[in-house]
Amino acid sequence: MKYATYRHEGEIRVGQVSPDGLSVTPVRVAGRPVSDLHDVFAGAAGASGAPVALASVELLAPIPRPRRNLFCVGKNYAAHAKEFAGSGFDAGHTGAPEDLPTDPIVFTKAPECVIGHGAAIWAAEGVTDFLDYEAELAVIIGVGGRGITRAEAMRHVWGYTIINDVTARDWQKRHKQWFMGKSFDTFAPMGPFAVTADAIDGASLDLSCWVNGERRQHANTRDLIFDIPTLIETISAGITLMPGDIIATGTPEGVGIGRKPPTALRRGDLIEIEIAGIGRLGNRVG
Amino acid sequence: MKYATYRHEGEIRVGQVSPDGLSVTPVRVAGRPVSDLHDVFAGAAGASGAPVALASVELLAPIPRPRRNLFCVGKNYAAHAKEFAGSGFDAGHTGAPEDLPTDPIVFTKAPECVIGHGAAIWAAEGVTDFLDYEAELAVIIGVGGRGITRAEAMRHVWGYTIINDVTARDWQKRHKQWFMGKSFDTFAPMGPFAVTADAIDGASLDLSCWVNGERRQHANTRDLIFDIPTLIETISAGITLMPGDIIATGTPEGVGIGRKPPTALRRGDLIEIEIAGIGRLGNRVG
Repeated sequence: MKYATYRHEGEIRVGQVSPDGLSVTPVRVAGRPVSDLHDVFAGAAGASGAPVALASVELLAPIPRPRRNLFCVGKNYAAHAKEFAGSGFDAGHTGAPEDLPTDPIVFTKAPECVIGHGAAIWAAEGVTDFLDYEAELAVIIGVGGRGITRAEAMRHVWGYTIINDVTARDWQKRHKQWFMGKSFDTFAPMGPFAVTADAIDGASLDLSCWVNGERRQHANTRDLIFDIPTLIETISAGITLMPGDIIATGTPEGVGIGRKPPTALRRGDLIEIEIAGIGRLGNRVG
Repeated sequence: MKYATYRHEGEIRVGQVSPDGLSVTPVRVAGRPVSDLHDVFAGAAGASGAPVALASVELLAPIPRPRRNLFCVGKNYAAHAKEFAGSGFDAGHTGAPEDLPTDPIVFTKAPECVIGHGAAIWAAEGVTDFLDYEAELAVIIGVGGRGITRAEAMRHVWGYTIINDVTARDWQKRHKQWFMGKSFDTFAPMGPFAVTADAIDGASLDLSCWVNGERRQHANTRDLIFDIPTLIETISAGITLMPGDIIATGTPEGVGIGRKPPTALRRGDLIEIEIAGIGRLGNRVG
């Protein structure tokens, strides 16, 4: 099932997206319309009422304001880890030719980074001199827990969405810990939809990213160094995961700092990310 | 003014602590009792009614559940930066003898790490093999904003509290980014009180930490490498700060990995942190 969170006639609603992707039908739980995706995790939601044309609503991020920072994984595709190590922007790079992580690297982005499909990414001119994109599959946790094993992990996944892990590369490097360069306002475009885990296989999804129509990233989530069950096992070993937690699984090769010469985003650039079965997330640098 | 958040007769309340530290008087805004410290940031709070003996209430953290992850600063006292670099636990250490940060290092802790005075720190046996303490002054933001200058920064500070930035050192090292090793459940004891910025000078506060009665840390916040206005200017350059945001300013020399030999916390250990004018925060590893 594919869900959208949207604004229509002044109300925020969660709806089910029609198979043809043209309309959305409001979701109800116990007869009442739902305005927060958290309310559908329990599974008792049903769609009813008149479908609304998707073109007539304002799409919001599936979870417009997460209840705590997003969990994000770094260097989780080998080819990207290599391009990052060679870029000069990885303050933690040891200089070894093969600098793949031996354990998941996890940082966070502030909840207020989240913006929806179509909303503008802040250029942050005068604050950063190297704005970059990172296309990522994001996992949405539906059932919380601590000490979740790999074998049990997928039972805790409610579904998936797309995140653009926008990054100020100079800040990421200068401040050593990545949080600062990852958490500027608007640096987490998310959406356009959230898709339940029974509808797609998160372990094998094609992912592409275009900048102004030029394809820059193209990979498949089967190439994750640490797969989704491993990430959930690792994070939940010490941290109780909660429904609505979001884990951005890392980006593949092809980001701006990996280009020759390195190429930063500029005001007006359009970044589009498509993941098979979820949709296409588009945001312009404003 | 010194505030406490506490549970009394089944209700969560915010109260003003008496000068003798023996009682607390419930705070009201517009005549209604306040249960969330955020409600006093605007400044219209007044205390009234019968004082309650502090000994008869359950102290909670001043902000028991922050609205997003805590901002935390690493390596912000020179002597601690040096002991950390020499400990073998700093994955980002360059090997240079003087490895002081040139810019603030900021990471986060999940909001659910927060526990109050007297609550148990999870030993996490079998998950971490090196539990450590870090005594820190924490800033509580009262007025939000982005692009706050150093000169304006103190107008955004509502007050201060104490945080024990509990850390799983093996996780901090192994996962490169510090978030994982910093965010285990219960890893942010906070309190016992929150004190307004007009009552104490955050730039010059004595701070001590004892483990089982032995003083391990003793410093003054005047020795912060990056002072509070600099931290606020840096963080708010790209991130809109919000009322209730918490910035833990870093820990001085004397943590467990700095000892010869390195000494981890063990179940039963009592960690007490005192900052002049705020109080003493005590938590046992349970």
